[in-house]
Amino acid sequence: MGKVTVDDCIFCKIIKGDIPSKTVYEDDDYKAILDVAPASKGHVIILPKNHAANIFELDDKDAAGVMVVAKKVATALKNVFGCEGVNILQNNGEIAGQTVFHLHVHVIPRYEDDNVNVKWIPDKDANTDDVYNELKKELQV
Amino acid sequence: MGKVTVDDCIFCKIIKGDIPSKTVYEDDDYKAILDVAPASKGHVIILPKNHAANIFELDDKDAAGVMVVAKKVATALKNVFGCEGVNILQNNGEIAGQTVFHLHVHVIPRYEDDNVNVKWIPDKDANTDDVYNELKKELQV
Repeated sequence: MGKVTVDDCIFCKIIKGDIPSKTVYEDDDYKAILDVAPASKGHVIILPKNHAANIFELDDKDAAGVMVVAKKVATALKNVFGCEGVNILQNNGEIAGQTVFHLHVHVIPRYEDDNVNVKWIPDKDANTDDVYNELKKELQV
Repeated sequence: MGKVTVDDCIFCKIIKGDIPSKTVYEDDDYKAILDVAPASKGHVIILPKNHAANIFELDDKDAAGVMVVAKKVATALKNVFGCEGVNILQNNGEIAGQTVFHLHVHVIPRYEDDNVNVKWIPDKDANTDDVYNELKKELQV
């Protein structure tokens, strides 16, 4: 089955090989490449070959498979570079840090004194009973 | 089939219902609850019912399913709260921000002026040819 690609999408061009990349893993449905602006040594992004802008557009099959590839990549990073930890991160929307609008999953190896910052100031009052009831209602259909 | 649980694991206790939680979604394999120290309104964590400390221990089936649940939760957050974006984040190891050693996936809705910080200073020289060759070799077995 042909993959869904979008003409002006830079990641679709990388997937097709029209733009070069440092591919570290590839199968029928995914291509994993070294990030060109890495957070740390070995930072990989995983691209589903079917174009989807974000998690909302991704079909369930592609969503499922991408985490299995992320596990594979994370394990390789640990084996090869001995990183002490790994963040697996998928950003949706500019506000969330997404810069290319073809869904991708970051696999970021973590080392002592790296420059990665994945934090928040907890707001214990944010998850009110109203939030709970509304979300529960939406999800338990 | 019985789930794999670990006696002194707080998330296993939440899954079994021995510790109360605000459950917003549940199926045979996953429980999704409101985070008690949320980054933002509607911050959910998804817990696979089988105990695995991290992505390295998670079996492929549980890895696959958790991203499908994350899509479901992200979509609900967008529908209910109209968030402008969503971060899906899974931390492995203390250095990566993991605080409970039962794998969980954060689904963090993003709003203007929130306190979430998911950033890094890119190090363009980090992904050298050596990094490329070593990782490629490990992954293309």
